[in-house]
Amino acid sequence: MAEHRFDPNFTQNVINAIGPKATPRTREVFTALFKHVHDFAREVELTMDEWQQGMQFLDEVGHIYFTSNKTRHEMHRISDVIGLESLVDEIAHTHASESGAAPTSSSILGPFWSPNAPFRELGDSVIQDSHKGQVSYLYGKVTDMETGEPIANAIVDMWQASSNGKYDFQDPDNQSPNNLRGKFRTNAEGNYYYYGLKPTAYSLPTDGPSWQMLQALDRHPMRPAHIHMTVSADGYRAVTTQIYPKDDPWLETDTVFAVKDDLVRDFVAREGDAKAQIQMYMDFKLAPAPTNGVNGQNGANGH
Amino acid sequence: MAEHRFDPNFTQNVINAIGPKATPRTREVFTALFKHVHDFAREVELTMDEWQQGMQFLDEVGHIYFTSNKTRHEMHRISDVIGLESLVDEIAHTHASESGAAPTSSSILGPFWSPNAPFRELGDSVIQDSHKGQVSYLYGKVTDMETGEPIANAIVDMWQASSNGKYDFQDPDNQSPNNLRGKFRTNAEGNYYYYGLKPTAYSLPTDGPSWQMLQALDRHPMRPAHIHMTVSADGYRAVTTQIYPKDDPWLETDTVFAVKDDLVRDFVAREGDAKAQIQMYMDFKLAPAPTNGVNGQNGANGH
Repeated sequence: MAEHRFDPNFTQNVINAIGPKATPRTREVFTALFKHVHDFAREVELTMDEWQQGMQFLDEVGHIYFTSNKTRHEMHRISDVIGLESLVDEIAHTHASESGAAPTSSSILGPFWSPNAPFRELGDSVIQDSHKGQVSYLYGKVTDMETGEPIANAIVDMWQASSNGKYDFQDPDNQSPNNLRGKFRTNAEGNYYYYGLKPTAYSLPTDGPSWQMLQALDRHPMRPAHIHMTVSADGYRAVTTQIYPKDDPWLETDTVFAVKDDLVRDFVAREGDAKAQIQMYMDFKLAPAPTNGVNGQNGANGH
Repeated sequence: MAEHRFDPNFTQNVINAIGPKATPRTREVFTALFKHVHDFAREVELTMDEWQQGMQFLDEVGHIYFTSNKTRHEMHRISDVIGLESLVDEIAHTHASESGAAPTSSSILGPFWSPNAPFRELGDSVIQDSHKGQVSYLYGKVTDMETGEPIANAIVDMWQASSNGKYDFQDPDNQSPNNLRGKFRTNAEGNYYYYGLKPTAYSLPTDGPSWQMLQALDRHPMRPAHIHMTVSADGYRAVTTQIYPKDDPWLETDTVFAVKDDLVRDFVAREGDAKAQIQMYMDFKLAPAPTNGVNGQNGANGH
């Protein structure tokens, strides 16, 4: 704990006020929170103006969620641009790979997952509306990371922005609900396949608090192009992740720090298919769930 | 920076994303913020559920400010119960006392200051409405902390809750606007005097996020009785502070950590005054302002 020239007992007094009936986890989390919030304030000698600006900023961030009918989760976006969701994701999934074999890397959920994505048939298209993107065939296999055996009946839940960089519920004038969203069940060989778009890089919204913060930090608002996927199956830990095209210029400087090497894939030429001239192959390796049957800690499932 | 078993470069990558045009202060504040937020998450191995609970909590806290017509600043209250405002207050006022002589201790502004308090005449009462409290005469002298000379024309801006524990704008059915608020100018001898109430201890609101947090922490919601005062004068640093009756049972465990020894005062018997049977004496020592004429860093003035 940084002491500087301020009352050396202050933070401990705040911690000591936690009563005996607080749960051990509550005590642990808030003790660390109080230390870090106080050390932060002491280290930078936070001014009253800065503290008030910070409160006003968080007020506005929280308010947008409700005034947008809960479609714009700005607090989630702030978490993302400061790296917190990527870090929480890493913390959760470091536990999952203790056996030695590694599952497919996870990546952040982001604020655009929807519980309403429809089940579609293998081979269907998730493209409901007009667009300016490149249609792609997307396919792969879901396997057990320990045995390599295919997993039938796994659910691949995908969502992506359209070629204008917007998700369906950000863009009601151009997109119908569940455009570019869908759930697919793998077949007996563990395979999934469908038609979608090669994803397009996009900017985070530039009309709210997160953009104010990025501007103050002299940072760009771009995410590399990506397709979100959450893959789950009975008896396995679900994986929430994102797939990135190899030729994207923003891979190195993703504004939410979510790119991992094994998630970068090549979209290559596809022959003899009138529906798509490119294709992308992505396998998913899942870790068996602990024997207590819990299906892994997963943002989308708990959302 | 705590490293644990997670990617040791992650936090530095987020810091390195700050661009060259960020101001030095922005870089300093956000570098410390990123380190502490990340270290907090790593140290407690924050789960995705806990992170999502935290975002939801902050969303609700921010939203209340706007749905209450900005009369309920719950983010400010959260700052207070985690000790942050008291700490920021200490940081600001440690600077002010470098000369050796000490001004009257400052204390937190709290969320109930109003820019609309009327000027009243010395000797007037701030009590506009009916109440169950004890009427008190309140008086004292404002002096220069270096010379001890009285300061004429200083402004004593006071506000307090009524005997039901509520401030005027929390209690529109029982209190008229500016009940128990007032500004007084000291006379040629630096004296102020007026009639008000001996203050009453009260609970923070128990119907919102701050109370949920206090319950999780097994903490009580009580503030000791207090009168808020901000004292300012041309050429001096303003002091925002609170005065506490010596017989209050919550002095040791104030839920916002704002009590300081020199702010605890005795309310004593008053003889020969039909208007009040008790009185309270409180001097204020002000520090001269820096020669650039800035009137000190003060929450109420900057609000």
